Amino acid sequence: MTDAPLTVGGLVYPGFEMLDLFGPLEMFSMLGPERARILIIGEGSAAVPSAMAMDLTSGPKVQPDCTFDSAPGVDVLLVPGGFGTLPALENDALLNFIQRQAETARIVASVCTGSVLLARAGVLNGRRATSNKQLFARATAEQAPVTWVENARWVEDSKFFTSSGVSAGMDMALAVIAHLLGEEAAERTATAAEYTWHRDANSDPFVSHLNELADLVS
Amino acid sequence: MTDAPLTVGGLVYPGFEMLDLFGPLEMFSMLGPERARILIIGEGSAAVPSAMAMDLTSGPKVQPDCTFDSAPGVDVLLVPGGFGTLPALENDALLNFIQRQAETARIVASVCTGSVLLARAGVLNGRRATSNKQLFARATAEQAPVTWVENARWVEDSKFFTSSGVSAGMDMALAVIAHLLGEEAAERTATAAEYTWHRDANSDPFVSHLNELADLVS
Repeated sequence: MTDAPLTVGGLVYPGFEMLDLFGPLEMFSMLGPERARILIIGEGSAAVPSAMAMDLTSGPKVQPDCTFDSAPGVDVLLVPGGFGTLPALENDALLNFIQRQAETARIVASVCTGSVLLARAGVLNGRRATSNKQLFARATAEQAPVTWVENARWVEDSKFFTSSGVSAGMDMALAVIAHLLGEEAAERTATAAEYTWHRDANSDPFVSHLNELADLVS
Repeated sequence: MTDAPLTVGGLVYPGFEMLDLFGPLEMFSMLGPERARILIIGEGSAAVPSAMAMDLTSGPKVQPDCTFDSAPGVDVLLVPGGFGTLPALENDALLNFIQRQAETARIVASVCTGSVLLARAGVLNGRRATSNKQLFARATAEQAPVTWVENARWVEDSKFFTSSGVSAGMDMALAVIAHLLGEEAAERTATAAEYTWHRDANSDPFVSHLNELADLVS
């Protein structure tokens, strides 16, 4: 049996956090092009600045492969967080794109404040989810019927995988790979990336820093 | 005292490994623009495909901020590895750029097979260094007087910081931050990124996988 490669769509918007996007994509890329293909999807075709490049003359910018309108339905939709999340919450084209993809995707995954975008798009209604610890209050302030889980490295509820902040996206991506392709594929991926997989979704080493982290942005 | 922000130059070439580049850059970006600025540096100005985008019609491509010729001297030079390392070993413009920057940079750092590029450029002569475990034999085959250390998450020798494969770059980047800005800055960076810092340079969880990993590419 030769399955078609998984299509993994990485959503980008101005001010996305680099590691939220590229950490999980690295894990999928380790599967090789026979098993996973990556599409970078932006609102337009111009290079999209990461959070580090906002309001500066330099910093990482990524080139989209396709746009919200031209993108095919993907198997795995990956929504990063970052300080650009706040303006993105008012972007109807982006929220519509998430809604449309969520109807057909096998997995909808978010990292950090990416789950706030999923909540605003309405796709987490009635679901359990988590978010970044530094900005956790921003998630729970969202007017959507979502059960926010504070102590979680990531939360899996049906096809929705939401992770805690930044680095947690890599642990969640390995859980998605285990879910879709089996535990052994996830193990081999972690080893090839020389990554020590934090594999307990319910144990969050950073939940105790919640108040300290919130102070950094208050 | 208000120091100027550190300039962190991320070298990109076709086939660089995403997480080798963006993992360390994420850690520097967490310092904020007052303390660190990132420059993406490529041979030309066109977007540069990561390893996952090579020979495919899609995949992550990054937009350089400046070229080998136009880049200023940077404080920290970051050289990622990846399957694009092999052709890059024959790229004199790239090797000359490394040599030139290494003369004035405060830190020259590499991830994964990036250390093979440093060795070929001659800047590791007489130094201790490490490399990716899957392709470790490729490093030791290099005709340069370098002491290759097998069991290391990363190796620090004078201003040269070389890390093991892919994910190890994040641990090394935190060590560079500790070296330049103090241990507390590194701790806060790791916490803000919700990253469990593997802080023992001399303990490599993946050295025992060396032969198994080498089999994957043989």
